[in-house]
Amino acid sequence: MSLSEFKLIEKYFNVKNKAAFPAALTIGDDCAVVDIPEGQQLAVTSDTLVEGVHFLAGSDPALLGHKVLAVNLSDLAAMGATPAWLTLAITLPKVDEAWLEGFSRGFLNLAAEYDTQLIGGDTTQGPLSITVTAFGLLPKGSALKRSTAKVDDNVFVSGVIGSAGLGLLLAQQDNIVADNEDLLHYLKPMPCVEIGLQIRELASSCIDISDGLAADLNHILQASGVGATLNNELLPMTAGVQQHIQQQADWRWPYSTGDDYQLCFTCPEDQEIELLTILKGHRITKIGKVEKELGLRIRFKDGQQEVLTKGYQHF
Amino acid sequence: MSLSEFKLIEKYFNVKNKAAFPAALTIGDDCAVVDIPEGQQLAVTSDTLVEGVHFLAGSDPALLGHKVLAVNLSDLAAMGATPAWLTLAITLPKVDEAWLEGFSRGFLNLAAEYDTQLIGGDTTQGPLSITVTAFGLLPKGSALKRSTAKVDDNVFVSGVIGSAGLGLLLAQQDNIVADNEDLLHYLKPMPCVEIGLQIRELASSCIDISDGLAADLNHILQASGVGATLNNELLPMTAGVQQHIQQQADWRWPYSTGDDYQLCFTCPEDQEIELLTILKGHRITKIGKVEKELGLRIRFKDGQQEVLTKGYQHF
Repeated sequence: MSLSEFKLIEKYFNVKNKAAFPAALTIGDDCAVVDIPEGQQLAVTSDTLVEGVHFLAGSDPALLGHKVLAVNLSDLAAMGATPAWLTLAITLPKVDEAWLEGFSRGFLNLAAEYDTQLIGGDTTQGPLSITVTAFGLLPKGSALKRSTAKVDDNVFVSGVIGSAGLGLLLAQQDNIVADNEDLLHYLKPMPCVEIGLQIRELASSCIDISDGLAADLNHILQASGVGATLNNELLPMTAGVQQHIQQQADWRWPYSTGDDYQLCFTCPEDQEIELLTILKGHRITKIGKVEKELGLRIRFKDGQQEVLTKGYQHF
Repeated sequence: MSLSEFKLIEKYFNVKNKAAFPAALTIGDDCAVVDIPEGQQLAVTSDTLVEGVHFLAGSDPALLGHKVLAVNLSDLAAMGATPAWLTLAITLPKVDEAWLEGFSRGFLNLAAEYDTQLIGGDTTQGPLSITVTAFGLLPKGSALKRSTAKVDDNVFVSGVIGSAGLGLLLAQQDNIVADNEDLLHYLKPMPCVEIGLQIRELASSCIDISDGLAADLNHILQASGVGATLNNELLPMTAGVQQHIQQQADWRWPYSTGDDYQLCFTCPEDQEIELLTILKGHRITKIGKVEKELGLRIRFKDGQQEVLTKGYQHF
């Protein structure tokens, strides 16, 4: 017996968890309706995950529910926005209650971690894909943009780089070791929401690393009309990624693999101490400097330099 | 040569049309950022169209671009909201510039008609599907809800009912006659945005008819804890639909077919004259009355009655 769309939403998604900003009207009408506190702006982002493109067929639905929300919260984090509301558009080949139970659990657990509220969406039949739209709040005029990096700012990243990319390789090889940190970074990325909020008044620009550090930092550089040089030996990596680079003799690896969902941001030198003090407890690494000369350069310890411009291409 | 996601968005979607509520930050950053005018609430809705489910493979991309936006604007209309912003998440098997040119034209033409602004989204590779999230503005507390119909209110519909369903039949039979009104209603539905705005202060409840009049009116009745009886001979239909009903001896047809995107709303009798005066120029038909007795009943001219509860089921 198939569940109707209404019953399906009611059963798996219409939870009444604690919401930091309770919607005036939520699931069950033509639209959701929300109030924006005075003096705040709304930040909006959408991301789609498609089976076979962004995740492997047969992926654990709970991890998938977590991930599709994590990638959207990561975009809010990159703006310095406080997550508030979510909509979920889910396309499913058929009603599979075990899948829905797992997916909704993974999704709603992460939603609850940030006191965000699922306020609406759509369920349809078709090849498995999921689009989340996430809404965040920002004090007026405070958004962390891509276009505002300045020459002589330093470049920082949170966490480790290239780890999720290695995790994907391991997942594809069925090389599943439960406590492998690279695999975990790929399967269950954690959005850097707190970091985004803490650096909002200090960083000069910010982006989340979804398509690879080189591609995403290049977005900042191009939008800001500047360039940068990174020091290769400063790049924060897991032991697994360091080993992979040596084995493959491929130094480009951590710059070009996607899915890290760390933040890359720039900060004026005179705000750096305050920034690093606020971020105590998070792994934050200074990896380079913004320069007038356009383009992204990687400097090696022997003094050699390479230019990097490309990352993951969607098509 | 394939276009990168960035160039693709820039080429087809990053238009600078007139916007009633210009976003503070639009396409090209991690999030869009918008200002909500004081005293206003934000209405949010998402709808997905999937190839083979919501539209036929090989559909005209311009009509598809129009339709995916129309169904979302229809949800805003049903709340009485003024359309303001849009996000578009589009999954494409491959970059097909002819398709993108048509799709973006259909989408952006309708967007421009309501001075709405495309502020963000996502493009990914995979089986063709499109999710639009639409944002509208509402004076605080004025949303037209489903749960507020009252006993003795009259039931109204805009336009004609069952027409798009017949249009779908014609499209499936390749029975394409350029000036067939039913086919046009199916291929190019027009959202009832003006009607929604005009009835906001007068109607007691409202829904847009996407799943069929019976299913959608039942949503109002259930949410409001009331029932209704409709007079079958009052139902507004095209000549084509009347003929189809006679040929098939299927009076249920206009109640059960979806895709009309008309509004169904209830109005207290003492506000009816004002409502009909304001809506002069639109086709508005009183089709029945809200009653205490639960359920949806259809009364025929011979005095017989039937109970209708079901419409289009998504799964």
